[in-house]
Amino acid sequence: MEVKERIAALRGEMEREGIDIWIVPSADHHQSEYVGAHFKARRYMTGFTGSAGTAVFTKDKACLWTDGRYFIQAENELRGSGIVLCKMGEPECCTVEGFLEKELPENGVIGFDGRTVGIGEGKRYEDAACAKNGKISWTSDLVGRVWRDRPPLPEGKAFALDERYAGESAASKLERVRGKMKEQGADVHLLTSLDDIAWLLNIRGNDVAYCPLVLSYLILYMDRGELFADETKFSSEMKAALAGNGIRIRPYDEIDEAVSALSTPSCILLDPDRVNYALYRRLPEHIGVREAENPEVLMKCVKNDTEIENIKKSHRKDAAAHTRFMYWLKKNIGKQEITERSAAEKLESFRREQDGYLEASFEPISAFAEHGAIVHYSASEESDLILHEGKLLLTDTGGHYMEGSTDITRTVALGEVSQREKEDFTLTARAMLRLMNTVFLHGCSGANLDCIAREVFWKKRVNFNHGTGHGVGYLLNVHEPPVNFRWKEGKTPAPVLEKNMVITDEPGIYIEGSHGIRLENELLVCEDEKNGYGQFMHFEPLTFVPIDLDALLPDEMSEEERIMLNEYHQKVFETVAPCLDDEERAWLKEYTRPV
Amino acid sequence: MEVKERIAALRGEMEREGIDIWIVPSADHHQSEYVGAHFKARRYMTGFTGSAGTAVFTKDKACLWTDGRYFIQAENELRGSGIVLCKMGEPECCTVEGFLEKELPENGVIGFDGRTVGIGEGKRYEDAACAKNGKISWTSDLVGRVWRDRPPLPEGKAFALDERYAGESAASKLERVRGKMKEQGADVHLLTSLDDIAWLLNIRGNDVAYCPLVLSYLILYMDRGELFADETKFSSEMKAALAGNGIRIRPYDEIDEAVSALSTPSCILLDPDRVNYALYRRLPEHIGVREAENPEVLMKCVKNDTEIENIKKSHRKDAAAHTRFMYWLKKNIGKQEITERSAAEKLESFRREQDGYLEASFEPISAFAEHGAIVHYSASEESDLILHEGKLLLTDTGGHYMEGSTDITRTVALGEVSQREKEDFTLTARAMLRLMNTVFLHGCSGANLDCIAREVFWKKRVNFNHGTGHGVGYLLNVHEPPVNFRWKEGKTPAPVLEKNMVITDEPGIYIEGSHGIRLENELLVCEDEKNGYGQFMHFEPLTFVPIDLDALLPDEMSEEERIMLNEYHQKVFETVAPCLDDEERAWLKEYTRPV
Repeated sequence: MEVKERIAALRGEMEREGIDIWIVPSADHHQSEYVGAHFKARRYMTGFTGSAGTAVFTKDKACLWTDGRYFIQAENELRGSGIVLCKMGEPECCTVEGFLEKELPENGVIGFDGRTVGIGEGKRYEDAACAKNGKISWTSDLVGRVWRDRPPLPEGKAFALDERYAGESAASKLERVRGKMKEQGADVHLLTSLDDIAWLLNIRGNDVAYCPLVLSYLILYMDRGELFADETKFSSEMKAALAGNGIRIRPYDEIDEAVSALSTPSCILLDPDRVNYALYRRLPEHIGVREAENPEVLMKCVKNDTEIENIKKSHRKDAAAHTRFMYWLKKNIGKQEITERSAAEKLESFRREQDGYLEASFEPISAFAEHGAIVHYSASEESDLILHEGKLLLTDTGGHYMEGSTDITRTVALGEVSQREKEDFTLTARAMLRLMNTVFLHGCSGANLDCIAREVFWKKRVNFNHGTGHGVGYLLNVHEPPVNFRWKEGKTPAPVLEKNMVITDEPGIYIEGSHGIRLENELLVCEDEKNGYGQFMHFEPLTFVPIDLDALLPDEMSEEERIMLNEYHQKVFETVAPCLDDEERAWLKEYTRPV
Repeated sequence: MEVKERIAALRGEMEREGIDIWIVPSADHHQSEYVGAHFKARRYMTGFTGSAGTAVFTKDKACLWTDGRYFIQAENELRGSGIVLCKMGEPECCTVEGFLEKELPENGVIGFDGRTVGIGEGKRYEDAACAKNGKISWTSDLVGRVWRDRPPLPEGKAFALDERYAGESAASKLERVRGKMKEQGADVHLLTSLDDIAWLLNIRGNDVAYCPLVLSYLILYMDRGELFADETKFSSEMKAALAGNGIRIRPYDEIDEAVSALSTPSCILLDPDRVNYALYRRLPEHIGVREAENPEVLMKCVKNDTEIENIKKSHRKDAAAHTRFMYWLKKNIGKQEITERSAAEKLESFRREQDGYLEASFEPISAFAEHGAIVHYSASEESDLILHEGKLLLTDTGGHYMEGSTDITRTVALGEVSQREKEDFTLTARAMLRLMNTVFLHGCSGANLDCIAREVFWKKRVNFNHGTGHGVGYLLNVHEPPVNFRWKEGKTPAPVLEKNMVITDEPGIYIEGSHGIRLENELLVCEDEKNGYGQFMHFEPLTFVPIDLDALLPDEMSEEERIMLNEYHQKVFETVAPCLDDEERAWLKEYTRPV
């Protein structure tokens, strides 16, 4: 069935239900960053495969909103579908709400699957309907009705994360969370974010690519809990362990009726940025609602000592794999055919050799030459460039290990690159090193510190249009909010940087049509000296892979910056050398030499 | 009458009125930073002369809350009064609210002069009374009843600020403010902050030391206004000019009834952080209230081109005066007796020689040796040290000129100072220079940039417990919120730094019992290159006085920092040299030499 036929079928359902406008967002029912095949309704209805976008259908119009990353791709993929591309951020582009205001007839009905919409978003659609004396319809899944051969819900096996990896028992975490519930005056807590649930119960799964999570909901009471998930994913040992903590498994799709039937509790704690609109609407009227960030969110950002020990192990393995890859690349470029995709596959193969490696922690970026300037580039069969000497290769990749997750970006010179590329590389290295080596008083957030990295760019009147860093989950989501380095605060201010948080440091520069450079280390937040001025803090690098000296201009660095680099490279050598063979070790010695 | 007798008299009034607890804050009726003699009720009732503190009286208890700056002074001044000192911030110290909770009897009455209390504060007292089924009394001034020889309201003459100084007519400002009122859906605007009124109407006065302001309120309608002030302060020309803008003068103390009698307007715009509690309570019930920051607040932070031109002139004069002072100090130390106070007086006399100089813009700080470590030190007759060689003198002073206001701190070595003092001086100079020379993208606030200065301190595990900078008014308040450099955000986030804002850059280091160093330049926010990354911004120094090279260790500076210093000193020489005689100029040449 072509996209056009799918839209016609959807319009048939809309007419049957008396719905004027149907909205199809990109989300699953858990506001996840990565969405499984079963949930890709927007992709099914439009043919557009990008990760972000909202489709809206009336009886004679079809539109897709997406952002600047995807304009070119969306134009190509929408061709022939009759769907109009609405370019978010462009001055002439109206918003979805503006479109609703214009297109909704008086007394009209706006419809959407309430499970795929956030609470704030759902309320905005309510307002749009209200302005026309209309109403919303949020309980049906019209796309589901017309979707032939819809992929089933994922059936990946769940697995338990032993305490030697997790560092804290589920029982202890449950006690801490219940303490927070009490503080908030709540006696029940609704959890829909997959990483919060996985962290809390020390379970992992295989339901979403790049995210070792279990598709589930959790209703937590003060004395028990109900986990809504496919029971067949759990071994009997896991079920026994859950039962030992008072957690009963119920079918995934019973969550709706369970929320509707909530009775005993006087007050439910839920996170308005994580719970979907449909569940929010299903809450019985007599229930008090305490809206606050899930207590799990900040708890899981602060890693425990076992996790830290493990994370350091995973990074040593990852550094060995990545260093081998760099050496392999330098040695083989020009001697055999290597493409962006085959290079990424090679790097993945070095990781697979490591103990405890599970899978990539996100969709790898392997971007050669001008492709490096596309921040979210993903090499397709068609775009896959053959690497050659004289340009840079940017790889942003990472792995999930039983001992934690990694995220690293390196940009490597293939042969001799231009002076301009070296200047930009040096600028990026300086920014990365300066932030990694800063010292700050406890109480600072990433909003305070972002400029430490960015200042060297700004002094040259350049910038990068992404955050300088994000939190990293422990065998959860590799992009773990809310920890970040961003000078522009989002909806909620960045949290204070606490001991044992993990954050990336990844400045970059992107010259369209020419090259892109990004260097990314993960950092551990550590306590430093405490004195009369307060508790000082610093970062410790977790990532130990060389900064390519072939692309570096030491003369453009201050003495302080050269010392930072040399000290870092010395640690790289000490950490990685024991994992290498003689030839690789000799290479590493050369590439970590003082400048 | 002794303080004890005053308290007894107050308790008599409390009993007569049936009031259990009476609160005496430090504020005037305008939430001003500096408070005139007429309003110093807390000082009268306690004998404590510090600028910050709250006194609370019950029928048998008397307490004073103040902060760390004033613990020693308050202990001395309260001795024998029977008043208990409550040290704010100390762990064992309860809050005023905690005290009310403990001391207020069931059905009790909390009283205070509602004009001296902010809206938020008044609401907290309401809550405290409510918790005991009691009530508040806010309409009386009990201290006023017992205060013999209370200083009258100030009677300083007002003067008009000609457009060649103000750069914009009052008519134009009124039009802009009315535009903002309209945007907010308000048709009346209540102004109580003296600097907002002075800015809006282009009037200045002499009612508060260090602040050339007129004691007044303003009710602004869409077509007219009522200025509540002492009419005798205004010349007939000024009255005519005000009348020309539809502004009628009414007696100062008619504001209460005027607010109570508001009728026509449907919605009043007022600033909850600036209007006092009494006026807020007097608003008739049928009036809609739009609470928002006064539109004047941000408007007056962004100086117009005429103001900028004038500010540069005033800084040139101020730099000449201050440079002469430095030369005089270096030449005469050890040859004649100079004290902290006589040094400050000498500096003031150099300022008085300048055209258009009006008065000091705040209470001058002149702190020698260990006194420099007391951040808010004010030399008294008793504390006044005789200066001698071998230590540092810190002066933080400024002036009001017709062309604007200045605020500058310099720390000067008298003779040869210790290595430690030089190290700390160099650190401070580096921080000040780095912030002054940073470049940033439009959109940054002082919260983003504060760490640019502070990082060099933090790397040495030291800090300073004050903001790195504050906005500066144009012949208004020298500390002009809300512009600031502070890494910890206050109640309201720091605003985006806009072109033509003026902000100080004043890091410092304070070693108790030994020395204190602060260096302060004023900076002008300027537009820099605009390109595909956005609008870049930088600072231009407004202050041109040498950084004392006798206290500086160039070897402890990076090459980049030395260049910053040398470029700054070159500008200092170019700016100030034409205003000096030959001998002074030769000295300046030497003290602005490249390092």
